[in-house]
Amino acid sequence: MTDRSPLRDLSAPPFATRHIGPSDAEQARMLQTVGYESVADLVAMAVPGAIRTATAMALPDAVNEQEALAELRALAGRNKVLTSMIGLGYHDTITPGVILRNVLENPGWYTAYTPYQPEISQGRLEALLNFQTVVTDLTGLDVAGASLLDEATAAAEAMTLARRASKVKADVFVVDAEALPQTKAVLATRAEPLGITLVESDLTGDLPECFGVLVQYPGASGRLAGFRALAERARAQGAQVVAAADLLALTLLVSPGELGADIAVGSTQRFGVPFGFGGPHAAYMAVREGLQRQMPGRLVGVSVDADGRPAYRLALQTREQHIRREKATSNICTAQVLLAVLASMYAVYHGPDGLRRIAQRAHRHAAILAAGLRDNGVEVVHDEFFDTVLAKVPGRADEVVAAAAAGGINLRRVDGDHVAVACDEKTTTAHLAVVWEAFGCEGVVVDDLDRATADALPGDLVRTSEFMTHPVFHSYRSETAMLRYLRRLQDKDIALDRSMIPLGSCTMKLNATTEMEPITWPEFAGIHPFAPDAQAEGYLELIGNLEGWLAEITGYARVSIQPNAGSQGEFAGLLAIRSYHRSRGDVGRNVCLIPSSAHGTNAASAVMAGMRVVVVACDDDGNVDLDDLSLKIDKHREALAAIMVTYPSTHGVYEETIVEICARVHEAGGQVYVDGANLNALVGLAKLGEFGSDVSHLNLHKTFCIPHGGGGPGVGPVAVKAHLADHLPTHVSAAPYGSAGILPISWAYVRMMGGDGLRQATEQAILSANYLARRLAPHYPVLYTGRDGLVAHECIVDLRQITKETGVTVDDVAKRLVDYGFHAPTMSFPVAGTLMIEPTESEDLAELDRFAEAMIAIREEIARVASGEYDRVDNPLRNAPHTADSLVSGEWSHPYSRAAAAYPLPSLRDNKYWSPVRRIDQAYGDRNLVCSCPPLEAYED
Amino acid sequence: MTDRSPLRDLSAPPFATRHIGPSDAEQARMLQTVGYESVADLVAMAVPGAIRTATAMALPDAVNEQEALAELRALAGRNKVLTSMIGLGYHDTITPGVILRNVLENPGWYTAYTPYQPEISQGRLEALLNFQTVVTDLTGLDVAGASLLDEATAAAEAMTLARRASKVKADVFVVDAEALPQTKAVLATRAEPLGITLVESDLTGDLPECFGVLVQYPGASGRLAGFRALAERARAQGAQVVAAADLLALTLLVSPGELGADIAVGSTQRFGVPFGFGGPHAAYMAVREGLQRQMPGRLVGVSVDADGRPAYRLALQTREQHIRREKATSNICTAQVLLAVLASMYAVYHGPDGLRRIAQRAHRHAAILAAGLRDNGVEVVHDEFFDTVLAKVPGRADEVVAAAAAGGINLRRVDGDHVAVACDEKTTTAHLAVVWEAFGCEGVVVDDLDRATADALPGDLVRTSEFMTHPVFHSYRSETAMLRYLRRLQDKDIALDRSMIPLGSCTMKLNATTEMEPITWPEFAGIHPFAPDAQAEGYLELIGNLEGWLAEITGYARVSIQPNAGSQGEFAGLLAIRSYHRSRGDVGRNVCLIPSSAHGTNAASAVMAGMRVVVVACDDDGNVDLDDLSLKIDKHREALAAIMVTYPSTHGVYEETIVEICARVHEAGGQVYVDGANLNALVGLAKLGEFGSDVSHLNLHKTFCIPHGGGGPGVGPVAVKAHLADHLPTHVSAAPYGSAGILPISWAYVRMMGGDGLRQATEQAILSANYLARRLAPHYPVLYTGRDGLVAHECIVDLRQITKETGVTVDDVAKRLVDYGFHAPTMSFPVAGTLMIEPTESEDLAELDRFAEAMIAIREEIARVASGEYDRVDNPLRNAPHTADSLVSGEWSHPYSRAAAAYPLPSLRDNKYWSPVRRIDQAYGDRNLVCSCPPLEAYED
Repeated sequence: MTDRSPLRDLSAPPFATRHIGPSDAEQARMLQTVGYESVADLVAMAVPGAIRTATAMALPDAVNEQEALAELRALAGRNKVLTSMIGLGYHDTITPGVILRNVLENPGWYTAYTPYQPEISQGRLEALLNFQTVVTDLTGLDVAGASLLDEATAAAEAMTLARRASKVKADVFVVDAEALPQTKAVLATRAEPLGITLVESDLTGDLPECFGVLVQYPGASGRLAGFRALAERARAQGAQVVAAADLLALTLLVSPGELGADIAVGSTQRFGVPFGFGGPHAAYMAVREGLQRQMPGRLVGVSVDADGRPAYRLALQTREQHIRREKATSNICTAQVLLAVLASMYAVYHGPDGLRRIAQRAHRHAAILAAGLRDNGVEVVHDEFFDTVLAKVPGRADEVVAAAAAGGINLRRVDGDHVAVACDEKTTTAHLAVVWEAFGCEGVVVDDLDRATADALPGDLVRTSEFMTHPVFHSYRSETAMLRYLRRLQDKDIALDRSMIPLGSCTMKLNATTEMEPITWPEFAGIHPFAPDAQAEGYLELIGNLEGWLAEITGYARVSIQPNAGSQGEFAGLLAIRSYHRSRGDVGRNVCLIPSSAHGTNAASAVMAGMRVVVVACDDDGNVDLDDLSLKIDKHREALAAIMVTYPSTHGVYEETIVEICARVHEAGGQVYVDGANLNALVGLAKLGEFGSDVSHLNLHKTFCIPHGGGGPGVGPVAVKAHLADHLPTHVSAAPYGSAGILPISWAYVRMMGGDGLRQATEQAILSANYLARRLAPHYPVLYTGRDGLVAHECIVDLRQITKETGVTVDDVAKRLVDYGFHAPTMSFPVAGTLMIEPTESEDLAELDRFAEAMIAIREEIARVASGEYDRVDNPLRNAPHTADSLVSGEWSHPYSRAAAAYPLPSLRDNKYWSPVRRIDQAYGDRNLVCSCPPLEAYED
Repeated sequence: MTDRSPLRDLSAPPFATRHIGPSDAEQARMLQTVGYESVADLVAMAVPGAIRTATAMALPDAVNEQEALAELRALAGRNKVLTSMIGLGYHDTITPGVILRNVLENPGWYTAYTPYQPEISQGRLEALLNFQTVVTDLTGLDVAGASLLDEATAAAEAMTLARRASKVKADVFVVDAEALPQTKAVLATRAEPLGITLVESDLTGDLPECFGVLVQYPGASGRLAGFRALAERARAQGAQVVAAADLLALTLLVSPGELGADIAVGSTQRFGVPFGFGGPHAAYMAVREGLQRQMPGRLVGVSVDADGRPAYRLALQTREQHIRREKATSNICTAQVLLAVLASMYAVYHGPDGLRRIAQRAHRHAAILAAGLRDNGVEVVHDEFFDTVLAKVPGRADEVVAAAAAGGINLRRVDGDHVAVACDEKTTTAHLAVVWEAFGCEGVVVDDLDRATADALPGDLVRTSEFMTHPVFHSYRSETAMLRYLRRLQDKDIALDRSMIPLGSCTMKLNATTEMEPITWPEFAGIHPFAPDAQAEGYLELIGNLEGWLAEITGYARVSIQPNAGSQGEFAGLLAIRSYHRSRGDVGRNVCLIPSSAHGTNAASAVMAGMRVVVVACDDDGNVDLDDLSLKIDKHREALAAIMVTYPSTHGVYEETIVEICARVHEAGGQVYVDGANLNALVGLAKLGEFGSDVSHLNLHKTFCIPHGGGGPGVGPVAVKAHLADHLPTHVSAAPYGSAGILPISWAYVRMMGGDGLRQATEQAILSANYLARRLAPHYPVLYTGRDGLVAHECIVDLRQITKETGVTVDDVAKRLVDYGFHAPTMSFPVAGTLMIEPTESEDLAELDRFAEAMIAIREEIARVASGEYDRVDNPLRNAPHTADSLVSGEWSHPYSRAAAAYPLPSLRDNKYWSPVRRIDQAYGDRNLVCSCPPLEAYED
């Protein structure tokens, strides 16, 4: 007999050991490099005692992956998936399996970052260009962006775009009475701080003096009417016309552009994107020629690379909020790339004929439904509609809705007398039978009705113009062809499944499979946002858990997960501050102090919240200049609304003075807003709420493992102290719970890490950043260090002197990193001419070393430029990235070898990423703006 | 008001339009090339009228993908997933999410073909080499193969290997009484036709004269005992020792090799592979030095490429049945590569420490369970065990099993007095509590027991030797690292997700996502093969449906899906014929006629079924020579058991004479076996059973969409006429329903295609093969055409004259195709010096044309060799494939340009696959056999 091995020693290692990259042994080696005995010692030195929390996080004990999945299955089981014919901008749809599995369930797509480095993003950029082409073609407008957050916020963005584009003085925006209720609510949230008056109208009569008008096409009640005359009236009086249009309906209807709209917005959810209890889904915006430079959000354009070949990249980036700061007109940053990719691929797979058929089928079911109702004496309110039938049932609405629900179908209770029924891609005559029965109809014979019933589209709105004529929408009709197209695009890109993405401020950590699995379960994916609460019990409990845990982690009293991006969380938080001051009669408090080092979104959000931005200087170390802070506070004492700071600072430093900053602002009557972008440096060590902050937003797509999806989805919960809880706005996003469909990811992360795991992750993130800083310091100056030369969870390497001496720029280093197989760090933020590196806790030592070795090898290449061994212009840095084609084809005229270009390190021979294009000419693309699929001839040599 | 669009015109296109590559328009263009007006005309000419069926297939109408998934969900819902502690070689296990999603749910892995083309298979070959290393390390033996079908058939293969290796004359094989019941049953099936006598023994006394002995380690009852003395006795008398060993147990136990085994076999299921109601799982076999050249199945070895760098490939292929034919000693062909990859990755992810911990934990739970039982007066039969506790409960076994089931746990009823309980990776103390309660135990305190109970491993069996010391088992411990390792390996390979795999006889068609999705649902994945039928109602109905549909499709009376590879189906079919003859007293009928063109497996299976192979000549067109057939029939009339033919022939031709062949064999009292390898040319057009065949096997992994998985899993149902139905063997595979877990794939395919879709697929496959034949005919001779020069579903291009004239071989063309981004067609089968191309119906016209253009471009390159423009030795064909490294590094000394090497067609610039290695030296690897992971130094330059 042998001795015993006690059970407690035999437990599976916790999930944290899979999430956190370095093993204990690796951690020990890293500590040695950084010069500390233990993680505790390091953290004690790195993190100021003044902010350290004394209380552990009261979170449930960590469970393992199996247990977490079991709990999630139990929660999922408490959601009830009925057929939802509620409509209101959310329609059931079929995600083709090949797209579901190979995009939404494929880390090659979902772990990618925003395509700021276009050379390694050609795959998703092509998908987004397809998206833009679908939108411009269907809306009949000239330029479309690469997605917005949801239809309601897109409408709000359109409102402010219209205001900028119009010369009309009156701050009035007219809103269709037929607009979606959530759109009206978000417009109201957005309009108030900007001083815009909303006027609701049925749009039949004269327009008041206004800068713009929004028309819903078709209307929320199902009513379908054109707006040519309205558009003419608007044009005559200088107002912009915004059409909120259903993209599927547009396959059958005269487009907004043809009807005279200046701007079109809407959701692309019904292009194959699951309900997800309201999100995430991609909204679209398209504009007429002339407005594109004022569009919010990101825009993909075609340019050329160094070999003159077509290449994609984000266009017109100078419009973006992070550059325009307080002059920005929108704060949108994270968009909905992954969902836009899904929608675009749905269009690619179905093609125009397939989309038209899907639309016709939904319409036909609606027409037959209406006929059946009429035959049974039920009044159908509109004669002309697309997919939604409004029935008048005096006093019987609740009864009808209940009867349908008993039959497994959710209808929309409009009011006590009206019920609306929306047909969609999945609607069958079996569904119609249940609906008829719910209305009390009898003896309906579908075939007879089908023969007897005409379509219900107005003759003058039937579309005749073509759309989606580009070959990409005609080439991938078999599943095999589609699969290969997806693989081909994916293979062009670098995502987390290939290498580290060391982006400062973006926290590109592991998105674990166990976290991702539940989001495509039908019980989470299939719930309509306006389904009755009783059908969403699992969701509601999950959301309650998560809000509570996040409050505990951050030290706040209340968290709302509604904002579906960090930018929306910021906006919501600032609105809470605004409302708080106003509730106390402090209507004059409208100054928002923002340090010069802040991310541009901060200023943009402040402006949107009706505040004036006053910049506070920073010292050479990137810390807030306390003297200047006091000066600014004194100067604006009566008007002081808030200060917005990021902690640790955008420079990746734990400012020692944060407590003092909070105190001074509070003393002057201001509120403190701490941007949660860098929360990964704090979780488990410090609680924002404890050291003086009143409100924060978090980024679940940074600290809490929601994948970046190539530029969205995001979730940006807003967290507040108790005194602000009642001041949180309730309509910053379209859906009640924002991007509810992806919340299981963060829920699973917290559940599997527990308090200890979360703290360990933070500690490792700090260690890893300091490890890289120490490894790189002999080669590059490392900026902004704190005590003992330590950084927080990211570090900044300074290339300015190198650039001055050698001409080698941050761009050159970033593009050269592509040749080494890496995504570049954050470039020139927060300081121009630098690279900000955030390794996160998820990278193991081998990968950290691989990155360090690449950076060091690049430094040696720079040294060769400095020494004259490499030409100052024709060198492997300036010419990076090198495509295989450029190395193989034609003569090699460079004064360095092909091998030096492709394999500067031996390890690359076994694991080489080949950039699909050479360096892209950004200026060319902006001068020659092309934002939809170029004809194939463009690709010919 | 507009007109109406009737509902019937608005249905979604059937699944068949996604499965079948070419659109209607493309099909029309292809017909034009082939010279026919319609598909019907083409088929009428291509397929002999004599075999055409007059009856449509009576199959349920096709449903769409959503409907099929809904039906499958309903079937899944009828399976009940209990915790199964039944054991008997099947143990619950956790598939790590990162492996589940990125291997089992990733077409990059599951659509790959067997790695016969090693250059484009380096990823999966590395995974298999890892598998072999795990097995050799854990078994303590010298060489392991790359998987067998299941533990029972592996034991049978070991038996015949022992027979070959032993000099003992007695045809006796001794089997441990503790062997798994299914192993005993399969051994019996295999032994009988070979004349082997099985002797069951408790192995405690002297051995009878025998060529080998099988010991189960640990035993089926849980009993754990070493076999050093037994091995010494066996060695002394010249018998081989086969250990059937539990791989997880071996992490704690002295290895079979150390105990003296010559051969070890077993299952790797519990290394992360779901139950799947019995399969598919990978079995292993390892042997001591000296036996490796006699091993059945595939063996991965290390060799070098043309640049002298290490590269993997299948070793010792001359052992294989397709080469050795009637001299073959095993018929195994398809193995379990995908499952072996899963198991190997489980080992990579956990490492030796993790595996040991998992084993200890299972053991510890068993020890505590036993102690709790004993404390409550339940007799525990064995004092020493690994994970399985055998309890004696006189007369109470049924009651205990029922009580446990009521608590959600399946136990094993051994007999009326004994219950066995197997602990596994998932077992928790909560499970133990249910088990104790079922046994009527009370007041068990786990912590107390844990303190008081010693481990139950025999001291002399505790392992001290190391295993899995190679770095690959220590490098990928975080999920991020694991994810990237999987991606890196995947990216080395060509699978169907990248390009067409035009393998003649292998039918590499679409494996649709909708077909694949259900297999990882817990309700299908989580059922133990010996779970009560009441828990598997969904499975049983699905199996019943599928067997019925396959019978209908093939025109047979009965189908059994038990055989888990085509080879096993062949064997089962031949056994049915053997049994039929013997039941009629025809014991002398043992001659099996096999045409010279047959696949080697046919002959090997015949030998295994106790038959003598007599070869029938073929004419120049590859058709059976009727005169020779008659001669052979006459010569062997009394002994004639069967003829085995493939239809259409292995040459891809519809032989006109098949009906005549069947008649002549029947007339002489023989049975007709038609190999179903080429069924994709028949479905919906002809039924094997109607034109004279008595028995066939099908390959669900060919015609019915089960993916090839890189070389398995397969399913090889056997189909028979009514007179053979009662003669089907019931134990050709370990599990009752073979590879049940993947049957939902074929079920979904048939359900979504319906009769019309299946027939259209066949028609398109014929059209596509003829299209390629016509496109290639001006450039290469096309062999073996039938009426009007038509082929069936594949075509053979002849390179023999080209080779003679230019020295360019089929190998050169195959490897050059890699540079063009393609997997080669089947090489030198059925005719040496030729390529056999089967496009299948799933390739669209663009891909067919891309392939044709590559072949034509290669022909032009060959012409340059012929003309002397290219050197006969140093040319892009002989040097293919070209790695990026070979093009970029060092001097380029070849008399053709780098661009000519890499980009012979312009389209490759946008879509280039880079081979990770240059051409691999097969002979070197066989001379220097290395079959486990080489040390890292081997990779240094």
